[in-house]
Formats: sequence, C-alpha cells, structure tokens
Amino acid sequence: MLQNIRVVLVNTSHPGNIGGAARAMKNMGLSRLVLVEPRLFPHHEADARASGADDILAGAQVVATLEDALVGCNLVLGTSARDRRIPWPLLDPRECGTKVIEEAEQGSEIALVFGREDSGLTNEELQRCHFHVHIPSDPTFSSLNLAAAVQVLSYEVRMAWLAAEGQPSKVEKTEVGSPRSETLATMDELERYFEHLEQTLVDIEFLDPDKPRHLMARLRRLYGRSSVSRAEMNILRGILTETQKAARGELIKRKK
Amino acid sequence: MLQNIRVVLVNTSHPGNIGGAARAMKNMGLSRLVLVEPRLFPHHEADARASGADDILAGAQVVATLEDALVGCNLVLGTSARDRRIPWPLLDPRECGTKVIEEAEQGSEIALVFGREDSGLTNEELQRCHFHVHIPSDPTFSSLNLAAAVQVLSYEVRMAWLAAEGQPSKVEKTEVGSPRSETLATMDELERYFEHLEQTLVDIEFLDPDKPRHLMARLRRLYGRSSVSRAEMNILRGILTETQKAARGELIKRKK
Repeated sequence: MLQNIRVVLVNTSHPGNIGGAARAMKNMGLSRLVLVEPRLFPHHEADARASGADDILAGAQVVATLEDALVGCNLVLGTSARDRRIPWPLLDPRECGTKVIEEAEQGSEIALVFGREDSGLTNEELQRCHFHVHIPSDPTFSSLNLAAAVQVLSYEVRMAWLAAEGQPSKVEKTEVGSPRSETLATMDELERYFEHLEQTLVDIEFLDPDKPRHLMARLRRLYGRSSVSRAEMNILRGILTETQKAARGELIKRKK
Repeated sequence: MLQNIRVVLVNTSHPGNIGGAARAMKNMGLSRLVLVEPRLFPHHEADARASGADDILAGAQVVATLEDALVGCNLVLGTSARDRRIPWPLLDPRECGTKVIEEAEQGSEIALVFGREDSGLTNEELQRCHFHVHIPSDPTFSSLNLAAAVQVLSYEVRMAWLAAEGQPSKVEKTEVGSPRSETLATMDELERYFEHLEQTLVDIEFLDPDKPRHLMARLRRLYGRSSVSRAEMNILRGILTETQKAARGELIKRKK
C-alpha cells in the first residue's frame, strides 16, 4: 500500500536535502521519490545525507514539470507554510496521514508535494493540489528544513499505516467522500477537465480571459476537494461538450 | 509550559546535527538544548544547519555527563532504536508527546534524551530514563538521522501542547471539505441549484426528461458531498444562467 505513495520535491536547491528526504522516506517505509528540476542531482551531498538510502536516490525519477510528476495521481497533497489569499481545504500532518492511507487502501495513487527551501510552492502549484498540509510550527519561526518536513509527513503516514494494518476488520467507512466502489479520476483527467471547463466558460462568456480573477482557482478548489470519480468526470465532461455546442448555436440550428 | 522541556543530545559526532536539532526544536516552540560532551561545538556547520535558530545554539548548555544534564528533572524519556534485553516502559512518539505535556502542566521538569548517531544510548544511560521512546521506523532501515528524530518528538510534543491549549493544529479550522471562512450554502439553496441544473441540462439537451436515468441522482451525490459554500453556489448558478442564454442562441444573436 505504501508503494502507492510518491514524494515529490519541487526545485530543490540543496542536494543534501534530497538525501535527507530519501533517508526519512526509507526510515518510514516509503520508496518513491520524484524530483522536479532539482538544482544539483545526482550529487555527493545527497549520497552522504541519504546514509544508506541509496536505492531511493538511484530510483528517483527526475522530471521537468510538476505536471509530469503528478501523472496518474488520484490525490495530491501539497505542503503550505503560509496563509494564502484563497483558502483551501487544509489538513494537519495527522489528518494527512489518515487521508493518504484511506486513499491508498482504495488503490489510489497519491503524491505528497514539497516546495522550494526558500519559497515553498507557488500559488499555481498549490492550486493543483487537492489538499494543503500545514505543519503546525511556531509562528515566529515557522519554516522547517525540507528533509524535516518530509520526515514529519512520512512519519504520520507510517503511523496511520500501522494503525490501519493493526485493524483487520474495520466497522465501516464513514467519511464523506466519493462513492467507494468507483475509481477516482486521476490528476491528468482532472487537469483536462479544468482545461475543458475553462474553455467552455470562455465560450459562454462567463469567463473573461483578460480578467479571469480567481474564478478557475475557486472551481479547482471545489472540484479538487470532491474526490470526483471517473464516472462522474465523464458526466461533467459530457455537460461541457453539450454546453459548447449550445454556445456555437448548434441547438438553435437543429431546431430550425 | 514548553520551557519546562529540555532536549539532551549525548556525545553528538556531527555538529550539523546539533544545528538541525536546534532548528527542529525552535520550529516546534522548544528552546532548551543541553549537550553532553559534543565532539565539536560550537562549529560553523551547527550554525549553518540551525538556519536562524542561533539563539538556541547560543543558549545551549554544554555538560560533561548525562547526570549533569538531568539535574532537576522529574521525568526523563530516552530514545531507543532497538529492543533491549531489559524490558522497559515503552512509548511511541505520540504517547511521548502526551506524557510530556501532562507532566509539564503539573510543573515538572522534563528531559528528552537522544543518543549517539551510530550507537544511540548505552544500556546504562537508558536505565536512567523513566520511559523509552521508540520511533516506529521500518525494521529493515530503522536508524533515523539525529535531527530527524528530534524533529519527530518535538513535533509530537507540539501537537500535544496545541491540543492541551485548546489551539487548533491548523492555521484556520477547515474540516476536510469547504473553506470554513465561507458560509455554506443552505439545503434550500442547494435544492434550487439542483432545479436550475436540471432545467439547464434539459435546455442543452444533455438530459432527456423522458429518460432521465440516474443522472440527477449522481450529480446530487457529487455536489451534495462537496460542502458547497454560498460563494461557490453563486458561481455555479452564474454558469447555469450563461449556459441557458447560450442554449437560447443569445450569444450567437449578440455576435451578429
């Protein structure tokens, strides 16, 4: 189940942190590391800090964009240090661990995304996440070392996993979520939906491309937190296609 | 209450780990660091890894023996990587956090003791502890970096402290669901939305009123579980209104 979980590090500056993250992951039983444009990798400092987690580094996937890192993911959680203007569904690390294991048990692919050492994730990157995770640090000194942040979340994932493994017969799933019998839409399916939605909103002149305001961010947040299943996604896409036909006047022509 | 808690590092070899531990402590609101015979301290690598937690390093107490480090303590917890021959009261990190805060609330002085990077605490040192704490790492790769171990226990102390203080562990309380700063749509607003949605789907000929199948039930389930806020509802209603205009051919007429 833990192999469904990937740790994604975006634009890491210090290779030592990549090594430290790899060690923290392996300590907690995680194995899949994805690096989005690391500044220096491979690097001897990464090897030194990995301190035996060489296999994680050797197997790390290096990709060019966050989108590439998230291909196939059903659930994406991004670490966020600060309050943002647009509020987003927010989990603490413990809730994050529980959520990750609940979804992994259903066969979902999950990404835990960590930003740059100095500036974290951009707003655009954060909007690609279904949930934000905030590690409750002291507000006067709030920025954790990157490997330390990976350690805390990996630890909570392991604690939740151990709890799940120790409960052979759970009574029932009570969480308000998506229908469990249905496969969740993947990140890239969701992404294509957002593109389709945006284009449709332009077509019906609800969205002005020159003054987008926060409209797409708000809609991403709404659908992102809803654990949309693939079957539901097909319905939503179907609605958009028919809406676009309407915007082109095809319905009117058909009636004539 | 957190100032009753000291972190004790025994015979640390790598000064970078002292700096990393100081940063982890300060992130979690702890401030008292005691070093038992560190190999190198002060040291520029400690300063570099502390990354702003200089005050913790400057205030660190350097002592010759573990006994010196524990003067005045009522409760001592020692990290233990392995099963030992002598069984001892054992806590996981979460239980450790709870125990520490319970005792700190009573005014106790508490020490969290961490051993050497390569060999941990000796049996004699472990026998000076009231409790052992084991971080539940993967048995095949169980040894955490020293600063990472300090991070995990400091984090659990902070989580327990926040719970005791009645403070949320998150910046803003958001349940898994909608942004809590926004008012949720009421049931009747949601009902009017579903009516509007149904009519619109008929208008764009996506829904055949004679063969509705389970379409509306599926869409009710999707939006029903999403805790839609009033602001989001207004956006969704706005989209429907524009879609209906498109279906009536008004966009086409406007363009002519």
